[in-house]
Amino acid sequence: MRPVGILGGMGPEATIQLMRNVLQAVDARDDSDHVPLLVHQNPQVPSRIKSLIEGRGENPKPVLTAMARHLERAGAKALAMPCNTAHHYANAIEAAVDIPFLNMIDITAQSLAMSGSGNIGMLASPATRMTGVFDRAFKSHGFSPVWVEDEARLLDMIRLIKSGKTAGLEKKLGEQARNLVELGAEHILVACTELSLLSGNLTLQVPVTDSLDCLAESIVGFAKGNGISIWSDPKTKSR
Amino acid sequence: MRPVGILGGMGPEATIQLMRNVLQAVDARDDSDHVPLLVHQNPQVPSRIKSLIEGRGENPKPVLTAMARHLERAGAKALAMPCNTAHHYANAIEAAVDIPFLNMIDITAQSLAMSGSGNIGMLASPATRMTGVFDRAFKSHGFSPVWVEDEARLLDMIRLIKSGKTAGLEKKLGEQARNLVELGAEHILVACTELSLLSGNLTLQVPVTDSLDCLAESIVGFAKGNGISIWSDPKTKSR
Repeated sequence: MRPVGILGGMGPEATIQLMRNVLQAVDARDDSDHVPLLVHQNPQVPSRIKSLIEGRGENPKPVLTAMARHLERAGAKALAMPCNTAHHYANAIEAAVDIPFLNMIDITAQSLAMSGSGNIGMLASPATRMTGVFDRAFKSHGFSPVWVEDEARLLDMIRLIKSGKTAGLEKKLGEQARNLVELGAEHILVACTELSLLSGNLTLQVPVTDSLDCLAESIVGFAKGNGISIWSDPKTKSR
Repeated sequence: MRPVGILGGMGPEATIQLMRNVLQAVDARDDSDHVPLLVHQNPQVPSRIKSLIEGRGENPKPVLTAMARHLERAGAKALAMPCNTAHHYANAIEAAVDIPFLNMIDITAQSLAMSGSGNIGMLASPATRMTGVFDRAFKSHGFSPVWVEDEARLLDMIRLIKSGKTAGLEKKLGEQARNLVELGAEHILVACTELSLLSGNLTLQVPVTDSLDCLAESIVGFAKGNGISIWSDPKTKSR
């Protein structure tokens, strides 16, 4: 199997959740059936929210490209990054290495395309909206994003999850999701890996897709070399 | 903080459990408060059980020493390995690198020494007993290990956990622990990281220590540089 390098730590619990998803996606009889990963659990990547929303603090880009190169040198045959907002730096990461980058945004849009829904309700960080991380992929599939009315509240929830204070937040996430349905969303996308930690019990009248699940499936597919994954091909990345 | 390299994948779920323990040991307000880790989640390390008990299959040692060197080159400032049996190869791992190895066996024995117990009931793989992984550390603290009567049954449980079939095993682990108390154990040691996945709800009349918890505490201490960890010092390792 081909080891996949994980640009992790954004946040660290989401990285652990991804590893758990990868584990659960394999029907293993022994350790050796599982997918090999090289995980840089780096919670010291500069805050994407500070840099992109507040315009202050250190730029995460050089840290992410250095992590990418280091994972490639360590033997990773592809890279993946369990943080939607950090995909703002996806082009720089791809340019830094010669191995494929399993782009969670593209993989997720591909998965959504199978559902036939048009209006996608976004449970995402305001930084994801402001930086247009999903814009290109959504446009190419004809999706319209639907954003929550009170995104400051959603950002507060993300901050609370990062500080480990999750009590009562599952209920609040459900309220935000129902708000999106009221606003016309036909499909809910969990597009923040912190929110992925709370979204397991969402019960809604519309389908729910989690970008972290889509990424896990792609990692397993790549590792096993069975060609079900989609990823940016380094040979064509300068198109 | 100083990143700690994890020789992981033995099994992969135990490595995830260690990462979770490290996360929970930190009172974080944001991502950046958490401990950085470089994790080689390598489920393809040759089976320790096959090599040590059955005398067949590939030797895990060269794989483990290569992983150690690679984690050192990747920037790890210390190494740790969440697999008790694999500590059979601890000397080779230490010899392969110039950074400290946070030896889970020594750290665990140190922790047990604070309890004042003498007879330690071992919930461990037969491979751990046969290779005498705990012998030196136990001798230096004056501990006597107590082993279960039916170790084939314990090995079956470990194999079932590795294949994801954990239904009913918590109860069976409790029976094994009570057997150890009947045989004179004053303190139960969970000394197999697969069994650590099931030991959270053990209710016994004697205290329970889990080597994986001891290692997580040591990793956090080392990363924060607060000197509470014990580890083998590379400068003195040839004594």
